[in-house]
Amino acid sequence: MASKNTTSSSASSRLKTPKGTKDWVGQDLLLRDQIFQSISEVFKRHGGVPLDTPVFELRDVLTGKYGEDARLIYNLEDQGGEILSLRYDLTVPFARWLAMRTDVKQIKRYQIAKVYRRDQPAIARGRLREFYQCDFDIAGIYDPMIPEAEILRVVVEAFRGLDMNITIKLNHRRILDGLFAVSGVPADKIRAVSSAVDKLDKEPWEAVKKEMVGEKGVAEDVADCVGNYIQQRAGMGEMLELLAAQDELANSEDIQAGIKDMRLLMSYLKAMDVLGKVSFDLSLARGLDYYTGLIYEVIMNEPNQVGSVAAGGRYDNLVGMYGKQQIPCIGVSFGIERIFTVLKQRQEKSDSSDFKRRPADVYIIAAGGKDSDGFLIERMIMACELWDAGIEAEYSAKAKPTLQPQFNASKDVPIVIMMGQEELATADEEIGEKCGHS
Amino acid sequence: MASKNTTSSSASSRLKTPKGTKDWVGQDLLLRDQIFQSISEVFKRHGGVPLDTPVFELRDVLTGKYGEDARLIYNLEDQGGEILSLRYDLTVPFARWLAMRTDVKQIKRYQIAKVYRRDQPAIARGRLREFYQCDFDIAGIYDPMIPEAEILRVVVEAFRGLDMNITIKLNHRRILDGLFAVSGVPADKIRAVSSAVDKLDKEPWEAVKKEMVGEKGVAEDVADCVGNYIQQRAGMGEMLELLAAQDELANSEDIQAGIKDMRLLMSYLKAMDVLGKVSFDLSLARGLDYYTGLIYEVIMNEPNQVGSVAAGGRYDNLVGMYGKQQIPCIGVSFGIERIFTVLKQRQEKSDSSDFKRRPADVYIIAAGGKDSDGFLIERMIMACELWDAGIEAEYSAKAKPTLQPQFNASKDVPIVIMMGQEELATADEEIGEKCGHS
Repeated sequence: MASKNTTSSSASSRLKTPKGTKDWVGQDLLLRDQIFQSISEVFKRHGGVPLDTPVFELRDVLTGKYGEDARLIYNLEDQGGEILSLRYDLTVPFARWLAMRTDVKQIKRYQIAKVYRRDQPAIARGRLREFYQCDFDIAGIYDPMIPEAEILRVVVEAFRGLDMNITIKLNHRRILDGLFAVSGVPADKIRAVSSAVDKLDKEPWEAVKKEMVGEKGVAEDVADCVGNYIQQRAGMGEMLELLAAQDELANSEDIQAGIKDMRLLMSYLKAMDVLGKVSFDLSLARGLDYYTGLIYEVIMNEPNQVGSVAAGGRYDNLVGMYGKQQIPCIGVSFGIERIFTVLKQRQEKSDSSDFKRRPADVYIIAAGGKDSDGFLIERMIMACELWDAGIEAEYSAKAKPTLQPQFNASKDVPIVIMMGQEELATADEEIGEKCGHS
Repeated sequence: MASKNTTSSSASSRLKTPKGTKDWVGQDLLLRDQIFQSISEVFKRHGGVPLDTPVFELRDVLTGKYGEDARLIYNLEDQGGEILSLRYDLTVPFARWLAMRTDVKQIKRYQIAKVYRRDQPAIARGRLREFYQCDFDIAGIYDPMIPEAEILRVVVEAFRGLDMNITIKLNHRRILDGLFAVSGVPADKIRAVSSAVDKLDKEPWEAVKKEMVGEKGVAEDVADCVGNYIQQRAGMGEMLELLAAQDELANSEDIQAGIKDMRLLMSYLKAMDVLGKVSFDLSLARGLDYYTGLIYEVIMNEPNQVGSVAAGGRYDNLVGMYGKQQIPCIGVSFGIERIFTVLKQRQEKSDSSDFKRRPADVYIIAAGGKDSDGFLIERMIMACELWDAGIEAEYSAKAKPTLQPQFNASKDVPIVIMMGQEELATADEEIGEKCGHS
């Protein structure tokens, strides 16, 4: 791959966007803006404050936050100044901002911006190296599970606004870690096992088990025990009963604390009319290191190739890692490109041109005939009057245009103004004055 | 500077954004969005199609486009894939896009996005290393000076929309290059002299002359001759007369072509009511290599420290440099951070908190007294009903809140809902049902 890129230095043979990136133009961009608009309305309704951080951070800020995925971070070249990397998500920059802003103890913030990952791209399925994230986070100390319930409610409102039928898969890091411990996974392998288990939605259990035993070095019977726990399927209430009833879990402080959290959450989700949208999935692990409590992933109920369309969780220790102040947080990130892919497929039947725009409001035609001077100045004056009134007006950018191209250009325009010698003879004096005709 | 950055690896001692960058939050961001909104309305009115390109480009795409300024480009580290750099402006990515899109022969496009320059930052004056540009360009073959006139009209409408009183300084590359040639500047030094002359708005002539003679190696009498030409001051019409009357310029094809362009432009600007906003400034040079015709810079009429608030010009050869198709272009770029600095200073008298948001629409208070259970579930149900109606509702995220903190939190909220035992006794059945009270 590297050699292929360096064999030719001719610009024209390499005219492309970088791998895993694309240009957005016209209708696609307007649809993406509509998605931003729709989701950020929900954020604002829930008291969200907007934040925008730089596209790169000091590399130290990102170090040690992403586990195995850190290899996907884009680094900037050392050009004799600071050592920088492109942001990998919006969560770590938010935590860095919170750590700096010791005057802020509680905030709901949202951010819509691009993030960068040197991942294997799959553009058709909406997986890119440069992609938008759209995050809503609640930072601060609150009573247990109240922010969790509001975040899930925000998710439901956001997808309702987009007319997308979704399910939120829930799990709790303390329950999951407790199950690993009870199964006999050594403490120093829990994150690695967790990242293997997280693939269970894309791969069969056998493949996941193979990774645990082969790559991660977990004993086979331990892997089987983990497999038995996490492949249990039941409704949220039933699952909590099931976990509470298992004697060997009773001594796990983590599991019991997780069960307590989930029971409280269930009562809140019922009040918020969200319970019907969630499922409790013990195999949900989420790759990132920093989660500490509830975790969730949003999938669509209709079959498609895009994977999860939103995800997040509680991360109580991330802000404290910067050593300035400790603020517990919970957040959700919407996968805009994937949501876009779904909504775009829906409207695919219509116009296929990616940058055809809707026609202007008015087109000004010079209908002068052979002897005419093309009335360019007059058309300019007319267009300015229309622009001043907020009306989208167009005219041929030729000094002496013929009729046919003007008719073609004005085909879809609702209002056409024809300018000829007779019309101008009766036009108001102002035009004559500006043209120097009087 | 570099040593300072590498002496400490402790994250907490270096908790900052990278040099020349800043976080944006709350009111500042909302003001910036208003600016985007206001300017892009003008773009749309003039038929603009939105474009969004990746934040980085193949390094080859940027190479050879920026002259001396190329040293300010941010490079990405070679991590075994493609060789990339961050975009330096939005013009070169647009040209690359046009070169790739051989199906596009004419387009008006706009793009609002961040660009990156390893320049010496001056944050108070709005000069950053990461900053927004906001570009409108007209690509394609049209009759002479018609797109020029429309671009200048767009500038006037945009700043009128922002209520900013501006002047557009105009010059023509062919006139300027012609004056250099007539003065005796060797052809291979014209761009270097041009970049020195461009500093005449910030430095006295003596400093510019010193750079031309000392650094650029131009003979002193040649520099003086250049100085005499470019320091002439007159109105646009007068200046054109002045240039046309000088015998030694009559043989310069460049100068005569430039004069012809400027005369035509003047008649169009008069028609478009823009003439009163422009001044002809022979010392305006613009640093970038790629301009070929009209160039312009927009300054504010009231004194301030921000420098130019928009700038651009005609660049007919840039797209062709990629070897796919030749499309003449003209464009303008608005300096959003500088515009922001001006508008922010104007509203400075008001609220100083950078992320205080306007209060919610409704606050729900639990007024239970000592024996109450805090009515958390009831407050959640009420909040959901309000959210569903598009109303921004808040409540205390405590299970059993006391009264005083709730009163404090609801201080600026126009509507407060009090929930007590008596109110709930008469509330509708739905609430009771969801809470499991019935």
